[in-house]
Amino acid sequence: MDPSDPDIAVESSARLVPRPAHPEGSVVTVGHVSIGGREVILMAGPCAVESEEQLLSTARAVLRSGAKVLRGGAFKPRTSPYSFQGLHEEGLRLLAQARRETGLLIVTEVMDARHLDLVSRHADILQVGSRNMQNFTLLEEIGKARMPVVLKRGMSSTIAEFLLAAEYILKGGNTEVVLCERGIRTFETSTRNTLDLNAIPMLKRHTHLPVIVDPSHGTGHAWMVPQLSKASVAAGADGLLVEVHCHPEAALSDGEQSLDPERFDLMVRELRAVALAVDRELP
Amino acid sequence: MDPSDPDIAVESSARLVPRPAHPEGSVVTVGHVSIGGREVILMAGPCAVESEEQLLSTARAVLRSGAKVLRGGAFKPRTSPYSFQGLHEEGLRLLAQARRETGLLIVTEVMDARHLDLVSRHADILQVGSRNMQNFTLLEEIGKARMPVVLKRGMSSTIAEFLLAAEYILKGGNTEVVLCERGIRTFETSTRNTLDLNAIPMLKRHTHLPVIVDPSHGTGHAWMVPQLSKASVAAGADGLLVEVHCHPEAALSDGEQSLDPERFDLMVRELRAVALAVDRELP
Amino acid sequence: MDPSDPDIAVESSARLVPRPAHPEGSVVTVGHVSIGGREVILMAGPCAVESEEQLLSTARAVLRSGAKVLRGGAFKPRTSPYSFQGLHEEGLRLLAQARRETGLLIVTEVMDARHLDLVSRHADILQVGSRNMQNFTLLEEIGKARMPVVLKRGMSSTIAEFLLAAEYILKGGNTEVVLCERGIRTFETSTRNTLDLNAIPMLKRHTHLPVIVDPSHGTGHAWMVPQLSKASVAAGADGLLVEVHCHPEAALSDGEQSLDPERFDLMVRELRAVALAVDRELP
Amino acid sequence: MDPSDPDIAVESSARLVPRPAHPEGSVVTVGHVSIGGREVILMAGPCAVESEEQLLSTARAVLRSGAKVLRGGAFKPRTSPYSFQGLHEEGLRLLAQARRETGLLIVTEVMDARHLDLVSRHADILQVGSRNMQNFTLLEEIGKARMPVVLKRGMSSTIAEFLLAAEYILKGGNTEVVLCERGIRTFETSTRNTLDLNAIPMLKRHTHLPVIVDPSHGTGHAWMVPQLSKASVAAGADGLLVEVHCHPEAALSDGEQSLDPERFDLMVRELRAVALAVDRELP
Repeated sequence: MDPSDPDIAVESSARLVPRPAHPEGSVVTVGHVSIGGREVILMAGPCAVESEEQLLSTARAVLRSGAKVLRGGAFKPRTSPYSFQGLHEEGLRLLAQARRETGLLIVTEVMDARHLDLVSRHADILQVGSRNMQNFTLLEEIGKARMPVVLKRGMSSTIAEFLLAAEYILKGGNTEVVLCERGIRTFETSTRNTLDLNAIPMLKRHTHLPVIVDPSHGTGHAWMVPQLSKASVAAGADGLLVEVHCHPEAALSDGEQSLDPERFDLMVRELRAVALAVDRELP
Repeated sequence: MDPSDPDIAVESSARLVPRPAHPEGSVVTVGHVSIGGREVILMAGPCAVESEEQLLSTARAVLRSGAKVLRGGAFKPRTSPYSFQGLHEEGLRLLAQARRETGLLIVTEVMDARHLDLVSRHADILQVGSRNMQNFTLLEEIGKARMPVVLKRGMSSTIAEFLLAAEYILKGGNTEVVLCERGIRTFETSTRNTLDLNAIPMLKRHTHLPVIVDPSHGTGHAWMVPQLSKASVAAGADGLLVEVHCHPEAALSDGEQSLDPERFDLMVRELRAVALAVDRELP
Repeated sequence: MDPSDPDIAVESSARLVPRPAHPEGSVVTVGHVSIGGREVILMAGPCAVESEEQLLSTARAVLRSGAKVLRGGAFKPRTSPYSFQGLHEEGLRLLAQARRETGLLIVTEVMDARHLDLVSRHADILQVGSRNMQNFTLLEEIGKARMPVVLKRGMSSTIAEFLLAAEYILKGGNTEVVLCERGIRTFETSTRNTLDLNAIPMLKRHTHLPVIVDPSHGTGHAWMVPQLSKASVAAGADGLLVEVHCHPEAALSDGEQSLDPERFDLMVRELRAVALAVDRELP
Repeated sequence: MDPSDPDIAVESSARLVPRPAHPEGSVVTVGHVSIGGREVILMAGPCAVESEEQLLSTARAVLRSGAKVLRGGAFKPRTSPYSFQGLHEEGLRLLAQARRETGLLIVTEVMDARHLDLVSRHADILQVGSRNMQNFTLLEEIGKARMPVVLKRGMSSTIAEFLLAAEYILKGGNTEVVLCERGIRTFETSTRNTLDLNAIPMLKRHTHLPVIVDPSHGTGHAWMVPQLSKASVAAGADGLLVEVHCHPEAALSDGEQSLDPERFDLMVRELRAVALAVDRELP
């Protein structure tokens, strides 16, 4: 990195996250999965864990299509207190069951430091959601954990703030951090958020951490997810976090942005060609 | 409120926060202070509690000028993990000491549900900061507490989301909620945030809860605070939350947006005239 | 102004607009009206000129309430080509008639350099709309004209860009420029725009030009206009540009943000008290 | 298109631009170049025409790499009146000369309706810049012209507003319109704009017009242009508008976002593979 580059000042305030600490880039390895290497990693599954049948049928489908990690929320941060808040511990148990039956790794959100032990017992990868990107005491606790974590960009967070949030985790000793661009809040209303793919090269330039993209939240429309997924891989993403639901029309949350398994499968085949075109692979 | 008003849909998803629940408006009473009545309430003090001398000299000054509540952070959410994070329990003890010596009520931030008991022992009013406006498990815990709370608007939160965050607290049984507009994140870079005074009448129309304004974070410049404070009162704010520091140039955080006691005192005198002009009072 | 102030860099690129050129502030005088002096100037009238009856009845009403300038669009920039585009030359003639019958000065928008002569024959003050704030060839032509001009801030324009747009006009020799804050585009959707009252002290610090506020476009809701008008005067505005329509419910454009004459009259009385409270006057 | 799709309401107010008017998509044909077909069209060249040597050496280089259209500004809209404003008619003559010597088509900006005849004599494709996207009288004049036009999205324009701006041109009878996403203004400051690639599928769904992307303005950093160009093609762009300068470090404008010919050539080779991966071609 050019130390005279003025586009971001994070190098002066962060120590562990900036790229010079690992110029060749970090690889976060979880079981048999390496995030940040040549392979583009697919993480897919429902927004929320709703039932055994829903989770397992979705899990089997995404596994067949090539996903390596199953996503699914047991603790759901919802704008309204009257919306479905997740199955909590029962949801975590279903996720662990899905892992046993499919071999997929599990990524799931932790919303509260008090849930960290519980979630860590069932998950392989923790997720910190956008609304908690600057929940600094949660970041500090995760810094002390020895669990890989996907840190999602806050919806109005600058790149510099995003990197400093990651620094909180690394400072605690946990270096297994994957950054996730998931769209930012702008004036545009036709999409749920504005997916900021500029963030991929900008993050890659300034940090050694792997970078993935969530095109489901980044657009809010299932029908746009394939195009933005291809764009993300073309721009250099190390993976994708995609909402897939066996019956999107019946989903308890985010149905309109969830792909069904058939569309996901088609998308993965299209993605494979794009990955090869940019010297990556997607088995 | 006109139920056909299309500007915000919160009435359909919230139950306790919308104005029809208390058409005349709520008054949050804490000790001898009533927020939401005819009097405009001043909450003032340093961004962070730094030392006994700093806190007490600032407290005495703001009391003399007319403040009823002393603000001061013991737990500080900071963008960088290497910035001063507050004095924690020692900071809370100093706040309690300042209350004993001045009679001012204390408002201070709680960042984590695990600190709730500790903070509640020392404070009169809890503050939920912008970055935690959608920390839903924290909101739920505060909903169970029997403590007044100042809830600050998230920096990219819509009015509807702000009201639903308050609904989380009321749903738990705690009705003593004061909303605080503190500026939103926009493209404008000459100010730290864009203070959204449209929010005052919009909130007043849609909820019965009191509304105060933080012009210090809303502008980021001490020299602009008096004008925006006057504007806030003219627009109908029930109070102000203002950063005042006995030596702004030596402050460990937010010095550039902190008034010194002399400027604060002058501002209060100017505010008094504006309050009278809009049928409010500021003793 | 403190030359070391880092909040805005316009002093380095502008020459005529920065405050040091006229430290005491400029006053733009048009006939018997002085903008930028002690008096707060009210400019009011319909969004668009629709008919002789509509314009004259509105003009007489705003005159009675204390307005000094009649606003009304003859050339209307509309998002859709199928919306009412204004009465064009006929609208200008009606404005001139309204001036003869009421003595009010006329401010009206010029959208195109080719209309400049025509509009100048009928108007006292030209208006450059938000969408044309960076229509640089139009600014250059207005710079050569000897007509006062109200320059509205672009809806995504920074303060620095706003000042440089004014510099285009002053550079041509026309120093009679009044800046108008009219709300910026943000993520908030409950209001049409976010009125940025931080802009008033920021502009006042960095330029000598008078600053007025358009609370009608800045909020998009007639019922919010009185509160934001009071806030604007409290923050230091030199005038207001307000949409008033004799029958808002029947307006061909912007009816939902137009006050009726009765509400406008009440608002002016409230404004008078606020003006006095900040050492201004509103006769 | 599903008529019940709620993401954008443009179908109700536009008539000629919505996709149902040409469900199969429009192709804009200019000489031997077809925009909107299977081929991804490259438009490249300097921000501003500076000299014969600069323009011709850049033109020859981009032709060799595969560009079909030469971009270059003769009339430059600049934030400051003291910045280089372009060579005007001399710039147009140099563009015409470059066309004669290379066979490249010429796209160049028209800022003012009064320049339309002049620019049309020298250019093959007109460009309407972001700041003029809602210069409605200019759009109307271009609607009467029989010239292809690249319409750039305003920096704070919604998709719906963008489509209605195009409707102004089609309504006049000119159907040869190409839409250009060029980044929107957000809170993020590390990039000049936030390139909104969500706009590609959203526009493609709602209109039959071709869509291209300007990654140079969309990022503001030459080093990011290749990744975002690949992302744009992967997301379905029909072409790219890229700033290339033979000596970026000496450019009179936008040097920091201009590629040098070598980097552009390398990028085109990388783009070819991505185009094939998404069933497009780039000869």
